[in-house]
Amino acid sequence: MGTIGLAVIGAGYWGPNLVRNAQATPGLRLQYLCDLDAGRARKVLGEYSTVAVSDSLDEVLADPAVDAVAIATPAATHLPVAMKALEAGKHVLVEKPLAATYDEGRLLVEAADKRGLTLMLDHTYCYTPVVEHLRTLVRGGGIGSVQYLDSVRINLGLVQPDVDVLWDLAPHDLSIFLSILPDGVRPIAVAAHGSDPIGAGRACVAHLTIELTGGAMAHVHVNWLSPTKVRTMIIGGSSRTVVWDDLNPAQRLAIYDRGVDRKDATEIGEQTRAQTMVSYRTGDMVAPALPEKEALRAVMAEFRDSITQSRPPLTDGRSGLRVLSILEAASASLAKGGVFLPIRSVETSTEGVNA
Amino acid sequence: MGTIGLAVIGAGYWGPNLVRNAQATPGLRLQYLCDLDAGRARKVLGEYSTVAVSDSLDEVLADPAVDAVAIATPAATHLPVAMKALEAGKHVLVEKPLAATYDEGRLLVEAADKRGLTLMLDHTYCYTPVVEHLRTLVRGGGIGSVQYLDSVRINLGLVQPDVDVLWDLAPHDLSIFLSILPDGVRPIAVAAHGSDPIGAGRACVAHLTIELTGGAMAHVHVNWLSPTKVRTMIIGGSSRTVVWDDLNPAQRLAIYDRGVDRKDATEIGEQTRAQTMVSYRTGDMVAPALPEKEALRAVMAEFRDSITQSRPPLTDGRSGLRVLSILEAASASLAKGGVFLPIRSVETSTEGVNA
Amino acid sequence: MGTIGLAVIGAGYWGPNLVRNAQATPGLRLQYLCDLDAGRARKVLGEYSTVAVSDSLDEVLADPAVDAVAIATPAATHLPVAMKALEAGKHVLVEKPLAATYDEGRLLVEAADKRGLTLMLDHTYCYTPVVEHLRTLVRGGGIGSVQYLDSVRINLGLVQPDVDVLWDLAPHDLSIFLSILPDGVRPIAVAAHGSDPIGAGRACVAHLTIELTGGAMAHVHVNWLSPTKVRTMIIGGSSRTVVWDDLNPAQRLAIYDRGVDRKDATEIGEQTRAQTMVSYRTGDMVAPALPEKEALRAVMAEFRDSITQSRPPLTDGRSGLRVLSILEAASASLAKGGVFLPIRSVETSTEGVNA
Amino acid sequence: MGTIGLAVIGAGYWGPNLVRNAQATPGLRLQYLCDLDAGRARKVLGEYSTVAVSDSLDEVLADPAVDAVAIATPAATHLPVAMKALEAGKHVLVEKPLAATYDEGRLLVEAADKRGLTLMLDHTYCYTPVVEHLRTLVRGGGIGSVQYLDSVRINLGLVQPDVDVLWDLAPHDLSIFLSILPDGVRPIAVAAHGSDPIGAGRACVAHLTIELTGGAMAHVHVNWLSPTKVRTMIIGGSSRTVVWDDLNPAQRLAIYDRGVDRKDATEIGEQTRAQTMVSYRTGDMVAPALPEKEALRAVMAEFRDSITQSRPPLTDGRSGLRVLSILEAASASLAKGGVFLPIRSVETSTEGVNA
Repeated sequence: MGTIGLAVIGAGYWGPNLVRNAQATPGLRLQYLCDLDAGRARKVLGEYSTVAVSDSLDEVLADPAVDAVAIATPAATHLPVAMKALEAGKHVLVEKPLAATYDEGRLLVEAADKRGLTLMLDHTYCYTPVVEHLRTLVRGGGIGSVQYLDSVRINLGLVQPDVDVLWDLAPHDLSIFLSILPDGVRPIAVAAHGSDPIGAGRACVAHLTIELTGGAMAHVHVNWLSPTKVRTMIIGGSSRTVVWDDLNPAQRLAIYDRGVDRKDATEIGEQTRAQTMVSYRTGDMVAPALPEKEALRAVMAEFRDSITQSRPPLTDGRSGLRVLSILEAASASLAKGGVFLPIRSVETSTEGVNA
Repeated sequence: MGTIGLAVIGAGYWGPNLVRNAQATPGLRLQYLCDLDAGRARKVLGEYSTVAVSDSLDEVLADPAVDAVAIATPAATHLPVAMKALEAGKHVLVEKPLAATYDEGRLLVEAADKRGLTLMLDHTYCYTPVVEHLRTLVRGGGIGSVQYLDSVRINLGLVQPDVDVLWDLAPHDLSIFLSILPDGVRPIAVAAHGSDPIGAGRACVAHLTIELTGGAMAHVHVNWLSPTKVRTMIIGGSSRTVVWDDLNPAQRLAIYDRGVDRKDATEIGEQTRAQTMVSYRTGDMVAPALPEKEALRAVMAEFRDSITQSRPPLTDGRSGLRVLSILEAASASLAKGGVFLPIRSVETSTEGVNA
Repeated sequence: MGTIGLAVIGAGYWGPNLVRNAQATPGLRLQYLCDLDAGRARKVLGEYSTVAVSDSLDEVLADPAVDAVAIATPAATHLPVAMKALEAGKHVLVEKPLAATYDEGRLLVEAADKRGLTLMLDHTYCYTPVVEHLRTLVRGGGIGSVQYLDSVRINLGLVQPDVDVLWDLAPHDLSIFLSILPDGVRPIAVAAHGSDPIGAGRACVAHLTIELTGGAMAHVHVNWLSPTKVRTMIIGGSSRTVVWDDLNPAQRLAIYDRGVDRKDATEIGEQTRAQTMVSYRTGDMVAPALPEKEALRAVMAEFRDSITQSRPPLTDGRSGLRVLSILEAASASLAKGGVFLPIRSVETSTEGVNA
Repeated sequence: MGTIGLAVIGAGYWGPNLVRNAQATPGLRLQYLCDLDAGRARKVLGEYSTVAVSDSLDEVLADPAVDAVAIATPAATHLPVAMKALEAGKHVLVEKPLAATYDEGRLLVEAADKRGLTLMLDHTYCYTPVVEHLRTLVRGGGIGSVQYLDSVRINLGLVQPDVDVLWDLAPHDLSIFLSILPDGVRPIAVAAHGSDPIGAGRACVAHLTIELTGGAMAHVHVNWLSPTKVRTMIIGGSSRTVVWDDLNPAQRLAIYDRGVDRKDATEIGEQTRAQTMVSYRTGDMVAPALPEKEALRAVMAEFRDSITQSRPPLTDGRSGLRVLSILEAASASLAKGGVFLPIRSVETSTEGVNA
C-alpha cells in the first residue's frame, strides 16, 4: 500500500489536533474532514486548505480514496460510526474510550478482527516519550517488581454533559498503567468512590483503587474542581521508584534509587521488631534526557505502520476493551458504595489483524 | 497559679522537641526529663543542663514541684502513664494518638473531667500559622461551603514497629480536618484501602475516604514508601479553594478565586445539558503573608494557658477521641475490604475543665 | 482598506510562526511565503496549502495584491529587504533587531516616515498577557516608583553564527523594559561584560548593567550555555515588587506587597543607625489571573490595526531604534572592558504614520 | 590536648548558633558566653544552662580554662578582639569577614602565624554537604574545565547599618568559589556595579563580575530588596554543568551532562560558520544523594581538629584574606563606576600552624 487516504470524522475539541498531525505525517493523505456541521469543519481547516469538507459520513466512506478514518466524535456514537467504517472496509483510529460500553467495544473488536482491519485506540499518552521510557524501564525490570502505582490528574476541567469525571479522565491513567505494567501484572478488582459537590448530576471528584495480580495496589485520583493542575504518577518498585511530573517539562521523569527493603530473617538474627526488619536506601536520582516530540504525531505514525505492516498497533482494540472493563467495574462499584468488584479479563489477540 | 512545674516523659523521637520548647516557654518550669533509660534522657539534655533526669515515673509524679506532664512515649503506654499522672493530680499533654484505642482514650477523658484537670493532645499541626489561618478562613465562611478535602502525606518514612501507616500519619490530617471544618460538618463514615507491598506486616500505603455531613468527601493518602515527600492539602469551597503546600515555605497557602459554579435552571432557560448548567470562575490567587513560628511553642503556650485559665485547650481530650473514632473505623474498614463504616460521634464537653 | 494582502519573507526558524498566525488573523490574507530556497518554503506550507511560494522578492513586491510584508530573514539583510519593501510602498513588520546597526535602522525609520507606511517591530514578548499586565501596572503607578529591574534569560541556546548572545537574546529584555517603564524613566548608560568560554568567537555569556534616569539600575543576564532554562524578571518598586517567572504557566506573575521602606528622620527621632532608618513590609502576594493567548496572534492584529487605522503600532520603528541604541552602546562597552557608555536617545515620533 | 575550653564572644545574631553547636560538639567544652550586654548573653543561654556569662573579654581571656574563642561581634571589632585573644594565646574562630580591611586581616594572620595558633574563618557554607560534594567534583575534574560561575543571593534582607550588600552577602559566594575552584584557577580582577534605590546610604543591590585566570568569568548578584528569596549557583564546565538550588532541599544539586562543545576544524572540514563549529550534548541529569547535616557542626569539628592536630583548618586566615582582597577591589571598582580592578594575590601558607 502506498499513501493511505484518511478522513477525520468530528471537528470538535480533538478533531483539529488529528487534522494537524495527519497533515504532517508522511504516508498519510488527509482527504476529508467530516462533521455534521460543515461550517465547523470548514473553520477548523481555515481558508488556505485544499482538504475537502463533508457533512456526510456515507459520502466519505463511499470514496475509494479513503482507506482509513480517525474518529473524534462523542463516545456514544463510536459504535455506529466505527462500525459503519469497518463495514465499509476502512481501518479505524478512535478516540478514547473505545465505545460507551464494554459490549459495544467488543462488537467493534470482533468486526475489525473478522475483516482483518486495524482498529486502534488514540491513547495519546502511551505515545509520549515519557511513557515510552517507562514502558521499557518497568517492563524491562528496571525498577524491580512493581509495588504500587499512584496517579493524580486534577485541574479545573470542563464538566462533561454525558460522562462523569471517571470516564472523562481516568482512561488516560488506565491506558498508561496497562501500557507499562509487565506481562502477568493485571488489574483484577476495583473500588471507586466519588462525589458531586456542585450538584452537576455526576461525579466531579473520584478515587479509584485497583488490586493488581501479585498484591500491588494502584490508585487514581481524578478531579474536575481543583483550581491547580496536577499531573503526577508515582510507580513504586522494589529496586527503584519513578516519579513523573508531567507539568515539569524540564524534568518530567525522576528515577530514584531510594526505598524501603525488607531484610530476611536470617539477616536480623533474633531481632523481631519491624523497624529492624527493614532497611532504607537513599541513593541518587537520575532524570533521563527525553526527546521533545508531539505524541499525536507518533499515534499517526503507528496507525499508518500498523496498516501497512498488517500488524496490531500498540494500542489495539483490546487495549480499549481493557480500559472499558475497568471503567465499567468502577462505575458499578461507585453505585454500590465503593465495594471491590472484579474486572473482566480480556484475552490477548493471538493473531495479527489483517492476517 | 504562678509558674507551672513540668516533667517530660519519654526521651525518644519527640521528647527532645518537647524539652526544647518547654524550656523556651515563659510560665513553664521544666523540672524533669523522665525515661526508663536515664542515659538516653541525660544525652538529650546534654552536659550543660540543670534539668533533673529520672528513670522513675513514680518519683516524678510524687514531686509536688511537678504540676503537669508532657507524655511522648509509645501509644500503647499512653493509658497507664497518663492515667497515673491524672490520678496524681497532674495536668497532661499527650502525643497523638491519645491512646491505643477509643475505649482507652475515653477512660482518660473521663478521668481528666472528673478531676478537673487539663487533658490536651499535642496535635502540633493545629498550632501552625497555616492551620490557624485556615481555621479562621474556612470556619468563617471565607471559602463558601466546603465541597471536598484532599490531603496527601507521603515520603520515605520510618516503617513503624507497632502501628500501620494509617495510625502513624493520618492523625495529622484528621486533626487538621477537625480543627478547620465549620460546626455542623462532621465525618460520618469512612472507607479505607491499604497495601503492604514490602511485606512489612502492616499497611505501608493507605487511602481513606471520609463522608462528611452535607455530602462532601474528604480523602487522605498516606504512604511510607514514596521517594519524594509530598505534604499537600486542598480544601475546595463553593466560593474559593485553598491549596496548602507545606513544603513551599515561601508560599504555603494559595487561595484561589477559581472554581465551578452551578447555575440555577432559571438562568439557563431551556438549556438542559450539563455543560450549560455550570460556569467557571478563573480569578486571582492570593498567598497570604504568614508569620514563621514554631508550632510546638504555641502548643506549650496553649497547655500553660488552659491550665492557668481553667479552660479546655483547643485540642482537648475529645479532639483526641474524635481522631481515634475515625482511625478505629478506618482500621475496621481496611479489615473488611474497604466498605464504608460509620464513625462514632463524640459529644462536645459542655463545661470547662477544672470547673 | 479591506483585507490586507501579506507576504512572509523568510521560511527559516521564525517564518513558520508568522505563516501560521497570519493565516489565523481575520483581516489578513496571506498571499506568499517567499524564501530564496523555494523548497524550504514549500515544506513549511505543507502539501495542503493554497498559499503561493516564491523565491523572488521582486516578484512578491511587484504583486499589487501584496499590501504588507513580514520579514523573518537574518538581521544583516533587514536593511535591503525592508527598504525594498518600503520603496515598493509596502507596510513592513520586521523581526528583532530592526537592523544590523543603529544607522541602518535609522534609514528604515526615515523611509517609512517619509512614505507614511507602517514600520513595526515583532517584539513578540510585548504582546504577551504578562507584559500587557505589567505595562498597565508599572506605568500606572501600581508598584510605586521603579527601584530596580533584573532579568535572567539563560538556557542551552543555539550559538548563533553572526551575532553574540547579547544581540541574540537581550533584545527581548530591552524591548520589555522599554515597553513597561513609565514615561520619563529612560536608559542613559550601559556597561557590558561578557565571556566566550567555549571559544565560539563571540560572547556566549553576558551581563548588562543599565543606568536609568532617576538612579535606578537594570540588569540583564543572558547565557547560551546554561543546562537549565531560566526566564525570570523582577521589577522592584517603592510600594510593590513584581516577579515574573515565564516558565511557570500556572503563576507567571506574582505581585508582592513586600519591601524595604526608608523612614523620614522625623519618624526616628535621635536614632541614626541605618537599621532604624528602614522598615520592612511583608504583606500578601497576589497572582493575577491572566488569559492564555498566543502573543504572535496579537502582533498580527496590531500590525493589521496600525495599517487600517493609520497609527503607529505599539512597537514602532523607534522602539526598534531604542533597542539598537542600547545594544550598540553595550557592544562598545564590551570591547572597552566594561566601562559605562552613554545611550543615544531616540525622540518619540510626533506625528502618526500614514499622516 | 584533651577537651578544648571555648568561649563564645558576642551574643547577637550569630552567637546563639555558635553556642548551640559548640555545646553539641564532643571535644569542646563551652566555658563562657561573653557579651558587653550580660543580660543578652544570659537570655541566649536560657534559665537551664550551666555555662558562665561574662561581660568582660579580659576576664574570659585570663581564664586558663579557655583555650579558644569563637568571635561573633561586628566586623569592625574583629581586629581588636581577635588580636587580644591571639596575644593571650587563644586559638580563634572568627565570623566572616575576617576583618574590616585587608590590612587588618593581614595583621591577624601574621599574629596567628607567629604564635602557631589556629586562626579559622567561619565560612559556614564551605562545610555544607553541597559544597563538600562540589569541591570534590570540581577540583577532581568531574565537570571538565570551569567555564563560568554564576551566583544569585537575593532576598528581603536586613539593611545593615555598617556595611553594604556586597560586604554583607558576597563573602558567602566568594568563599564558596575559592573553596571549590581547582588549584591554578584564581580571581584576578573584579568589576562591581551597585545601586541604592531606597536611599539607605549604601548599595542595596550589587553585581560583581570576576575574571579568573584562564579566561572564565564569575558573576555574583546580591540584593537586599527582593521579595522572593533566590539562592542559586551555576558552575559551568566543559564536560558537565552543576546547578545548585539551595532552597530545594529535596534536590539541592543537579549535575547535567548537557552543554555546548566546540569542534575541531578538522572535524568540520570546509565549514566555517559558527553554528557548525559547535555541537550540543543533552544527556541525563543526576541529583546526588547528600546527607542532611548542620554545617556549623562541621565548622566546630574542624576548629577542634585543626587545634588538636596542629594543622591549618580548611578555611584558614588566608582564605579570609582572599575574600577581603576581592571585596576591597570590588568596593574600589564600585567607587570608580565599575571598571575592572586587579585583585591582590594571597600566597598559600607553606608551613603548618602551631609548627
